[in-house]
Amino acid sequence: MDGITLLGLIAGTLTTLSFAPQVIRAWRTRSTADLSLAMLILLLTGILLWLVYGVMKEDPAIIAANGATAILLFLILSIKAKHG
Amino acid sequence: MDGITLLGLIAGTLTTLSFAPQVIRAWRTRSTADLSLAMLILLLTGILLWLVYGVMKEDPAIIAANGATAILLFLILSIKAKHG
Repeated sequence: MDGITLLGLIAGTLTTLSFAPQVIRAWRTRSTADLSLAMLILLLTGILLWLVYGVMKEDPAIIAANGATAILLFLILSIKAKHG
Repeated sequence: MDGITLLGLIAGTLTTLSFAPQVIRAWRTRSTADLSLAMLILLLTGILLWLVYGVMKEDPAIIAANGATAILLFLILSIKAKHG
């Protein structure tokens, strides 16, 4: 793995990790009423487009970061769908 | 501009826009006490690394998206530094 890809993977780990507290909070409290559905859908759409971009560019750092963040966002949205 | 770059710019616009409500709220209320400083610094570090990654890859979509998001995060952090 080259240095640039490693840098991208570190960058992706940090930006994905910054979502972790929100997921843990939503998981524990089962409460997501204060999270804007519009914002979550906007963000998820953007993240999924970045994922497609990463696949088209064959860029492993972009694929890994946005794949992981998409999973976290799906988790938050599924808690929101179930518990409001 | 090729189609893949356009896709990246659209993806970046969406993910950056999803921060806008938070910036507008912080600007209006001058209140950011509920925003975790650790999370903001983690996110800003990740975004700045993505920016370096974009420059090294010469990828305009990554540079534009993370440059714009970094500016929004600096705005939030400066409001937090001034008003707590």
